[in-house]
Formats: sequence, C-alpha cells, structure tokens
Amino acid sequence: MADTGWPGCAKSLKGVVLDMCGVLYDSGEGDGVAIPGSIEAVKKLKASDLQLRFCTNETQATREKFVAKLQRLGFDISVSEVFSPAPAALAVLKERGLRPHLLVYDGVLPEFDSVDKTNPNCVVIGDAAENFSYQNLNEAFRVLIGLEKPVLFSLGQGRYYKETDGLKLDVGVYMKALEYACDLQAEVIGKPSPMFFQSVLSDMGLQPHEALMIGDDLVNDVGGAQHCGMKGVQVRTGKYSHLPWFVALTSPLFFVPVLIVMKLHQHRTGCL
Amino acid sequence: MADTGWPGCAKSLKGVVLDMCGVLYDSGEGDGVAIPGSIEAVKKLKASDLQLRFCTNETQATREKFVAKLQRLGFDISVSEVFSPAPAALAVLKERGLRPHLLVYDGVLPEFDSVDKTNPNCVVIGDAAENFSYQNLNEAFRVLIGLEKPVLFSLGQGRYYKETDGLKLDVGVYMKALEYACDLQAEVIGKPSPMFFQSVLSDMGLQPHEALMIGDDLVNDVGGAQHCGMKGVQVRTGKYSHLPWFVALTSPLFFVPVLIVMKLHQHRTGCL
Repeated sequence: MADTGWPGCAKSLKGVVLDMCGVLYDSGEGDGVAIPGSIEAVKKLKASDLQLRFCTNETQATREKFVAKLQRLGFDISVSEVFSPAPAALAVLKERGLRPHLLVYDGVLPEFDSVDKTNPNCVVIGDAAENFSYQNLNEAFRVLIGLEKPVLFSLGQGRYYKETDGLKLDVGVYMKALEYACDLQAEVIGKPSPMFFQSVLSDMGLQPHEALMIGDDLVNDVGGAQHCGMKGVQVRTGKYSHLPWFVALTSPLFFVPVLIVMKLHQHRTGCL
Repeated sequence: MADTGWPGCAKSLKGVVLDMCGVLYDSGEGDGVAIPGSIEAVKKLKASDLQLRFCTNETQATREKFVAKLQRLGFDISVSEVFSPAPAALAVLKERGLRPHLLVYDGVLPEFDSVDKTNPNCVVIGDAAENFSYQNLNEAFRVLIGLEKPVLFSLGQGRYYKETDGLKLDVGVYMKALEYACDLQAEVIGKPSPMFFQSVLSDMGLQPHEALMIGDDLVNDVGGAQHCGMKGVQVRTGKYSHLPWFVALTSPLFFVPVLIVMKLHQHRTGCL
C-alpha cells in the first residue's frame, strides 16, 4: 500500500489548515472567546516546520476586521494566512461579469465595494444573521425569480454554528430555502467547495495528501477536505462541545503535539 | 376502458373542490381582490347539483375571520364548507398528545388556544410571513434541535404565492430551511397531504373519482388531488397569471359552464 493511510499521511505531512470558529474560538457578544488551548496550539504549529493556513466560512466581517478580532483574542494570525469566502466570491463575480444583489451581514459589505451592483443578475447570500428577515429573503427571491437564468451564490452551506448564547442558523439553511423557492441549485463558495480548498493548497504549494484539515464540522471541514484528497480531523469543540470531556480529548491542543511528534520523528504510531 | 379518462370523470362528477387564494381572489392589502368572474363561478356551481367545498392552505387567519373576508369580497361561502390546515393540525396535536411551539401568523394563533403549549415537544410552522424573522426561525430551530425526537409540522409546503404587490415566500420555503438545519423531514398538514384531501372527500361523502380539484398550484392542488385519485385542473390565475389572456381562458368562470354542461347532459366531449 502507498502512503494513503493516516501514519503515511503524517509522515508526508507538510501543512495544516485550521478552521476557525468552533476550533480556535466561539463567536458571540463582542469578539467571542478563545477556546482553551487554541492560542498555544497555533503557536506550537507556527514553531514547527509545518505550513499553517486558516480557512473559514466567516462572512460577518471583512477579512481585515475578522483577523484583527482574532489578534485581539491573542492569536498570532495575519490576513494573508486566512482564506474566507467573500474575497473568493468577488473574484468569481468579476471573472463572470456578474452584478450581485447582496444578502449578507452589514460588516462584510465593504468586501464588495468594487463590484457593480446595479440591475443585479445574480444573488449572493452569506451568513446574514439578523439580516435574514422575511422582507430581505423575499427581496432576494424576487430578484432570482425575475431572472431568465437565476444564479445564486452561497458563501458556505453550514447548517448552524455555536455562539456563546447558543446555536445559530447558518447560511446553508437560507440557501436551501431559496433553492426550494426558485427550484434551482446554488453555487457554494467557501467550504466544502473543492475550488476553495484548492486555493489554500495552491497558496501553500502543497499536494492534497501533504495537508491536513482540522475542523468542527463533519461535512464542510472534514468531508470537504477529504473530497479533495486531504486528510480531515474533526475536533469536538465548537458545535460539538456538548460533552465537556470531549474538549480536552480532541481540541487542537491535543492534536498538535501528536502531529509534531509524528512529523518530526516520522513515527508510524498514533493512527487515528 | 373504465370511466377513468376526463369525459368519464365528468360523467360521474358529483363534487368540486376549489382552491381559494389565486383562484377566487388575490391576497394583498386589506381583504385583497376577487378575481374577475370567480364570484359568479361560485354562484353557478352552487346552483348546479354538484357538491362544492373550498380547500385552502391559508394560515394567516382563523377560519372564521378568513371566511368573513371572503364574504366581504362577495363570495357565498360558509365556514363549514372551508377546509384549512390549522384546525386539521389541532386535531393531530391533540390526538398525539403533542405540545407545539408555534411559528405562525399572529392572526391564526387563536386556532391553537385550546392546546397546551408549555415545554413544547414539537414545532408547528404556518405561513408566518413577517414573523419569519431570523430570531423566530432560530428559536424554532433551537426547540427542534433540543428534542430527542424532533417533530416538525408544516401547514402546507407552498413555495410562494401572489399578493397584489408581488410574489411572496410561502411556508414551504421555511419548512425546507428547518428540515436542512435539523436533518429531518417535516410532516405536511394541508395540501398536498392525502389525509387532507381525504377529509374533504369524507365530508362530501364522495369517492375520489367523483370529485374534481381546481387550483392554481400544479404540485399542491393538482398533483395532490391526482395523487388521491381525484381529477385536478390548473387555472392560470393567481401565481400563474402573468399572461392576461390566460385569465379569460382558464379562470373558474371558463370551467364552470363546461363542467355543468358535461355533467347535466352527460356529454363525452370537451376532453381536456
């Protein structure tokens, strides 16, 4: 057998991609809170010879503001290391000459400043949270149903995420709503889109089997990465943190020493 | 061949079931407006020897208030002739001992006055319109995700309907949203549920092949009726009335004389 199993992957591992919300921090009032151990985990990964990138479906702020928040929480992260759907969507819109009707969180609007939004010929939805009012969703629906060839872009397809005050509906729920209303299929930009993972791999200059994705979402993080040929590991923080002992067992803090030991010593142990 | 084709059906026809919104009237500000010809069509049907019932997925008002509105518009309709999802849902809740969390339009709340709503163990959604805020949908989601066996009832599964100021998202869109969020399948009460059509047939004392459904929705009216063994006819008023000439061609006013002539004279002509 070639190096396709976990120990083989660890041997050839050259890069790690971390999901952010639910892995590094829980969102909520203000900046949210860092998940215990995650700041140290990022430090240790950066001190290793593994490449590190961050991959988020966060669409409630511009990438710059989002990274500034993470820095305030204590993370050593820069904008160029972070991949998020809004800049990827902007590139697609410009490439295809599309003019979007936006149903997104106010904070992410500046990402779309440079695109023509008059007489829209597509709809872009992100995690708009409270902006997902009946009126706003109906307006997006009317734009779509009025187009000869309706095009809907969804910045992610998550079902829900965890904030400090509980679970909250994510953009995928509203994507399904508009898909049903207009009898169409949305184009997903962000995880688990293979194109999105590929852009992260390209930035690291790595092949899929050389990179590992760590996330709290089985479909969007782990499944999306595996679909690209990457390894995927699911932590039990974030939306899966209902059982406290899982946190200690499977937080990034637990994985990082294992990864580094396996990488540095090329051990074929620690199969997950 | 038995009497399964249209002329045969017309020969044995003993009852007609009319959809309401988009067939008899267009909803909108105030009471909405009667569709030209529909008041006369109801009159002619009542004067014939055909039984007549009304079947609606309207869930923005109690049946009493809804019928009063239709009467103000000029229709000869009584409460006992109208079948709507809320009373049907109430019967199901009581039969199964379920306590609902309601996400419905304020006007229909009184229909559920008699059911215990403390410590809910299911969710009921109707066409809540502006009540489909992010906060309200999230609250319904949290109730469902917190249940060991989540049960979601949807009062209809329509995609959208037409009001005087344009198309509006219907309850089915939010049903799909919650189905995706919680990875479950809703139980639909109302059209096109076979149980709902069966209750109308039972009330008329007719077999399915003896009744005809006339509606503006291909899935919920025509498809639902046909699935029960009834005949279904789609009018082009309501959500399909973009082309004005369709209105004259396929409004109930057009069908009624054809039906009555076919019924009374037992003609085998006029196959649709």
